[in-house]
Amino acid sequence: MTTAHKPAARHWCPDLPVRHWARQYDRDTLLRDALAAAIVTLMLIPQSLAYAQLAGLPPEVGLYASVAPLVIYALLGTSRVLAVGPVAVVSLMTAAAVGEHAAAGTGHYIAVAITLAFLSGLILLAMGLLRLGFLANFLSHPVIAGFITASGILIAASQLKTLLGVSAGGHTLIEMVSALWAQRGAVNGLTLGVGLSSLAFLFWVRRGLQPLLRRLGVPPRAAELGAKAGPVAAIVAATVFAWAIDAGTHGVKLVGAVPQGLPPLTQPLWDMALLQSLLVPALLISVVGFVESVSVGQTLAAKRRQRIEPDQELVALGGSNLGAAFTGGFPVTGGFARSVVNFDAGAQTPAAGVYTAAGILLASLLLTPALFYLPQATLAATIVVAVLALVDFGILRRTWVYAKADFIAVLATLLVTLAAGVESGLVAGVGLSLVLHLWRTSQPHIAEVGQVPGTEHYRNVLRHQVITQLDVLALRMDESLYFANARALEDRINAAVAARPALRHVVLQCSAINDIDASALDSLEAINERLRDAGLQLHLSEVKGPVMDKLQRSDFLQRLSGRVFLTHHQAAQALA
Amino acid sequence: MTTAHKPAARHWCPDLPVRHWARQYDRDTLLRDALAAAIVTLMLIPQSLAYAQLAGLPPEVGLYASVAPLVIYALLGTSRVLAVGPVAVVSLMTAAAVGEHAAAGTGHYIAVAITLAFLSGLILLAMGLLRLGFLANFLSHPVIAGFITASGILIAASQLKTLLGVSAGGHTLIEMVSALWAQRGAVNGLTLGVGLSSLAFLFWVRRGLQPLLRRLGVPPRAAELGAKAGPVAAIVAATVFAWAIDAGTHGVKLVGAVPQGLPPLTQPLWDMALLQSLLVPALLISVVGFVESVSVGQTLAAKRRQRIEPDQELVALGGSNLGAAFTGGFPVTGGFARSVVNFDAGAQTPAAGVYTAAGILLASLLLTPALFYLPQATLAATIVVAVLALVDFGILRRTWVYAKADFIAVLATLLVTLAAGVESGLVAGVGLSLVLHLWRTSQPHIAEVGQVPGTEHYRNVLRHQVITQLDVLALRMDESLYFANARALEDRINAAVAARPALRHVVLQCSAINDIDASALDSLEAINERLRDAGLQLHLSEVKGPVMDKLQRSDFLQRLSGRVFLTHHQAAQALA
Repeated sequence: MTTAHKPAARHWCPDLPVRHWARQYDRDTLLRDALAAAIVTLMLIPQSLAYAQLAGLPPEVGLYASVAPLVIYALLGTSRVLAVGPVAVVSLMTAAAVGEHAAAGTGHYIAVAITLAFLSGLILLAMGLLRLGFLANFLSHPVIAGFITASGILIAASQLKTLLGVSAGGHTLIEMVSALWAQRGAVNGLTLGVGLSSLAFLFWVRRGLQPLLRRLGVPPRAAELGAKAGPVAAIVAATVFAWAIDAGTHGVKLVGAVPQGLPPLTQPLWDMALLQSLLVPALLISVVGFVESVSVGQTLAAKRRQRIEPDQELVALGGSNLGAAFTGGFPVTGGFARSVVNFDAGAQTPAAGVYTAAGILLASLLLTPALFYLPQATLAATIVVAVLALVDFGILRRTWVYAKADFIAVLATLLVTLAAGVESGLVAGVGLSLVLHLWRTSQPHIAEVGQVPGTEHYRNVLRHQVITQLDVLALRMDESLYFANARALEDRINAAVAARPALRHVVLQCSAINDIDASALDSLEAINERLRDAGLQLHLSEVKGPVMDKLQRSDFLQRLSGRVFLTHHQAAQALA
Repeated sequence: MTTAHKPAARHWCPDLPVRHWARQYDRDTLLRDALAAAIVTLMLIPQSLAYAQLAGLPPEVGLYASVAPLVIYALLGTSRVLAVGPVAVVSLMTAAAVGEHAAAGTGHYIAVAITLAFLSGLILLAMGLLRLGFLANFLSHPVIAGFITASGILIAASQLKTLLGVSAGGHTLIEMVSALWAQRGAVNGLTLGVGLSSLAFLFWVRRGLQPLLRRLGVPPRAAELGAKAGPVAAIVAATVFAWAIDAGTHGVKLVGAVPQGLPPLTQPLWDMALLQSLLVPALLISVVGFVESVSVGQTLAAKRRQRIEPDQELVALGGSNLGAAFTGGFPVTGGFARSVVNFDAGAQTPAAGVYTAAGILLASLLLTPALFYLPQATLAATIVVAVLALVDFGILRRTWVYAKADFIAVLATLLVTLAAGVESGLVAGVGLSLVLHLWRTSQPHIAEVGQVPGTEHYRNVLRHQVITQLDVLALRMDESLYFANARALEDRINAAVAARPALRHVVLQCSAINDIDASALDSLEAINERLRDAGLQLHLSEVKGPVMDKLQRSDFLQRLSGRVFLTHHQAAQALA
């Protein structure tokens, strides 16, 4: 399966990924792709409507956002199975960002959302063309985990108002809860009934539908895929029920009239002040969307020994978002659940995405009148069920056990996101994890090493029974030497020299030193000179090739009072 | 010489450093200390006056700042020879910070300077008690070098107005030069003559006085120390000259009436708004002062196989600055030139600092009337000569050759300091060096390794002729695995697996991996699972003790599809 896929080209070239699969496209592949597309379409329709609602947008915008982006990704993307469209976390971030500039339900709100998709697309495209994909790596996993869990809670909380049939707002947990509390007298009983029934049914679908289908004689794979399309059944049932009792007259909010037709041609608002103030939210949405998309894509690609190119993915997602902006959509990215379904349903090539887009297009042309009676509470229920799967408090326990610095990063991101909103949470998490990382590397592990008897190995004197020499101090620095930790080495050597009058030689074992920056070079020179002034020699052992190359560009090696040894054992023998 | 000095206590206790030397104090030590003190006093008087002028303060403030801080440092400090008082860069930073809040020459200006010393003292003390000395390490050497060079230029430029006898201001190079240009018609010829003569004499003193004294039969050490006290001769000669021609009546600015007496008891301004706005400048002054002081202290301590405790130094410098604040002084720190003179003159214990303080006290009681006719231009000349020694453009060339990232940090700090002032320069430099460091570690060196024929060594396949196996990919990761570079390893392995269908095993040689954070653990798990899905095994070799401890607290080792090998050679043999 490794076929014609080239290794990472170091520049972006018009060698579109589509050329790799389109040439070998045959009838069998077409049939598999079409089957996968049919299942994904069934799943995407309720999701698109629901995530548009979550973003504060009319339902048809969700459908529009699932057409052009899918087609553009199919042409530019390197994953063969990624399904692009509205996703939960990005929709929540869209609601938070757009809500700053416009009131939900207005035409201006839609225009700002389109502008956000446009900016996000530009940022992703620029990052891809400048090969800045690595920037996404600064979102550490603890930060992502804390952020996703907090987002799941925020999203679920934001849907409570729809489930209860009241009007309330807010972008932080405190705002939402207090807004709901203020509306506690206005709960609509029938809405709550529809909502709770939908919730109960959807939770059952997740657990119980697949076994039931199996018992009814459906083959295993079909049962599994059928269960994934289960939410459609909830949508249909709730719509029929609401139509039958004319629920709108009983105060149940319905989706209502959804315009029928093709996605409209739109354009962003060319308002410099607005564009400027949307820049940071757009950047955060881009990075979060990219991280989510690329990790899904990598996981699925690896299962078939394929690979994806992160920088080309940026270009593809950028194109998708620009596509969304010019066809009435809002920010999109590759979604986890739908991509897994696409993969499981047997999609072979990105053509499946094109067929899915055609399915959604058909739905927005023909199906929208049928959505009139769909209760909003049912859509809210599909969102709640989907996002509660994102909530994972186990990460707190796992990081607590594994590393306290990571635990602090998770907890801080989680709490700040809940208390101050998605953007503050992300920024605080990234900042804190960088500070914690720098703090950790600024306190390096420096082991004094001695010879394990009978071997040529040298290990930590505190962990092992080893042989040391009275006049030789052998230190292994377990960190690259850079400005933040260079002084730690100076301090360690100064202390040892002051405490051990018999010392004549200091040997620095450099096997774990991957870089020496200019500050650390100054430190080494200072150590060398101080040791020389005190009548001691400084030696190095096991210096790596790239580090040695660098040292040879300075005059440190000429000024070194001692020698550079290839192995630490040679140093110990020479100084014995 | 390592006597009773204890190894680093892990908590701050009332075991004052003074107890280590006071018990063994004898007549011989007293004589040596007193001689050193006499020489340092002669050097400190003009420096104190000049740096007070640089800070925009009356000359007596410089003398006051050289009394209490010296005594307090002698009690609390761990360096035996450090001389504390006003220094050039800190005085420049004081002028920049205080100038924001008060006009030079007013009583309020002095009060703000006192408040700045108070805040700086509190910050240093708090950092010491909280053992935060390591924070100073985040000032990388390229940033310090760029900052000191730019400060030297700024200081020299700031003294031009005094040398020319005009009034001009400004805190950036552009401001200063344009202010001087506007005053170009007002140059006072006699002032310029005095200034240039002083400059010429002082430059000659630096080079020519020592050889002259030697030729006159003075012993080498005495000649060396006599040359250091040379600026006093310039002060005396200029004062006598100005008195003889009554230079004040010819427009030459003189020091004028300096109050005679003991340092006054003062207190900071208890103005919360002022304290708050001085917080950042005080923090920067504290960190710069601490870095300068501790590097001087370490260099001199090492020459006698003594050592200093950075956290105790913070406490001592904090106490010194609080002392300055309550006795009419301004921010102080350990100075390079005076400490070297103190060391060279044979100071044995911090008692030399106490005697120096007594000398300065005597000067402020008796000598101040004699300073009336001292031309300010002569003080400006002593400053210019002192700071031009700080200017070192060679650092640009050295870092350019050694490492481009360091070069960028130097250049940016230098330019931002010159163009936007000392505080912006420092903040920009620190921020940029952190970003560059993170960028570098996020792009790790990952080498594919193979066996060097006939040995048990494994080296980079690109650098060496080595033996590899078709179905084994052996990678050495030359960086600790953390969130910013974990994906690079994923990408590298994904690419290799996609490109080499025959692969059955991936071995990760961990000899240079000093830490694996939670993000990197997730990446390893993802790599492990993807490899397993594709029918490959992941193995680790040469995992360090602390990293192994950490991995054992997760369930990664149970889920690992392959094995953990002690040495890479064992892995290669087992998989052959």
